[in-house]
Amino acid sequence: MKRIMLVVAYDGTNYCGWQVQPNATTIEGVLNEKLTQLLGEPIEVIGASRTDSGVHALGNVAVFDTESRIPGDKMKYALNQRLPEDIRIQESKEVDADFHPRYCDSQKTYEYRILNRSMELPTERLYAHYSYRALDMEAMKKACEYIVGEHDFKCFCSAGSQVKETVRTVYSLKVSKDDDLIKIRITGSGFLYNMVRIIAGTLMEVGTGRKKPEDLKAIIESMDRSLAGPTAPARGLRLVRIAYKGYDLEYLEKF
Amino acid sequence: MKRIMLVVAYDGTNYCGWQVQPNATTIEGVLNEKLTQLLGEPIEVIGASRTDSGVHALGNVAVFDTESRIPGDKMKYALNQRLPEDIRIQESKEVDADFHPRYCDSQKTYEYRILNRSMELPTERLYAHYSYRALDMEAMKKACEYIVGEHDFKCFCSAGSQVKETVRTVYSLKVSKDDDLIKIRITGSGFLYNMVRIIAGTLMEVGTGRKKPEDLKAIIESMDRSLAGPTAPARGLRLVRIAYKGYDLEYLEKF
Repeated sequence: MKRIMLVVAYDGTNYCGWQVQPNATTIEGVLNEKLTQLLGEPIEVIGASRTDSGVHALGNVAVFDTESRIPGDKMKYALNQRLPEDIRIQESKEVDADFHPRYCDSQKTYEYRILNRSMELPTERLYAHYSYRALDMEAMKKACEYIVGEHDFKCFCSAGSQVKETVRTVYSLKVSKDDDLIKIRITGSGFLYNMVRIIAGTLMEVGTGRKKPEDLKAIIESMDRSLAGPTAPARGLRLVRIAYKGYDLEYLEKF
Repeated sequence: MKRIMLVVAYDGTNYCGWQVQPNATTIEGVLNEKLTQLLGEPIEVIGASRTDSGVHALGNVAVFDTESRIPGDKMKYALNQRLPEDIRIQESKEVDADFHPRYCDSQKTYEYRILNRSMELPTERLYAHYSYRALDMEAMKKACEYIVGEHDFKCFCSAGSQVKETVRTVYSLKVSKDDDLIKIRITGSGFLYNMVRIIAGTLMEVGTGRKKPEDLKAIIESMDRSLAGPTAPARGLRLVRIAYKGYDLEYLEKF
């Protein structure tokens, strides 16, 4: 028996998110089905991030155990031949039997994309949230400074979440603009439910002038979800990578 | 009666190209249908470039004549409300009655995109051709020098084409790389059928070393389609813009 880690990229447009659900097509469900076919034994993967419906990934991480003799680093080729073209394994390798994608120490990086121009652009519609209102980049950058660090981020957690411990560390949060595409990139020890999308929605309100950068201090201290901005739409979000302490992943060089 | 010009952006993935065909969904067909509904009179647009199935556009151009009282520059808003989200009018304005998108002097700019990395990336699959083979950028740039200028480009014209006059002028042809995305950008007075895709396919053969940059001279002089490279897939191609002599189009500022 060996444990294989997969780095999984997908276009989330046509999936009901990562996690297996009855009567819905999910990334996890497709991986389980194709791995079970490929290896001839029942496989259930364990995923790192249960991304929502419509959210994309360049490098989500999953593991599974198998008796297969296919070498870990060849697994990606065998599996990609069976997967639909909107899911592609970027990397596969054998890892220690006690490696767990959710319980091992990691840093996750997400990117939120906003297309900021006068008219919508069809070729970007599935991978960026569209905003015609001009966004003040300097104000958004200033607001980021209040978010970086260890804080109780309850204000950025969806009301429906059951999580009790809401302290998290944001290592970096950067806003950049390339032509009319704004990218919000955030790296942290972990994120609360919808936290990145709520931060994106709040930064957009700063960008339009509805909130001031300094307001972020009071919003975070309030621990009140209703004071933060709206949850930005799923299509603008992508999970860029997950880096694990002690695991030297080749794919890290790629981004 | 007035003539309205539209600058049309679309994601070509789900269309059988621009031109109206029986029993197929086309960009032109959808524009005719939605304009006829909107204006209450039968409308048939005249398009500048009849892009193939799967090819995208940021700024194709079309005109139509109407009795409508909707001002030219407001037409885009009224029409976008009725269009599917994979077609978006970027600009609309009234033009002279004798303006014709195919017969007036213009410069067309196309971009061909190649994703060049070890594994496919689902979020780029509809907008870039994937190549795992490393491409030599310097060789491709050198090959471009032989293509720029006025030449008989018969070697880059699909065998099925009926066109007799095959001399065209390529004003500029540039290859650039941003991370693992290679962009081939070409501007010319007009292009033969599949010319940009055949140039892209030929440049890729130079990139892999199968052809040398200097070979381009003999290929062009031969006027023999079989000596050039294969026609690169449609999904990598996008029509970026069409600039008309004497028409100061706002959208030109955008790219």
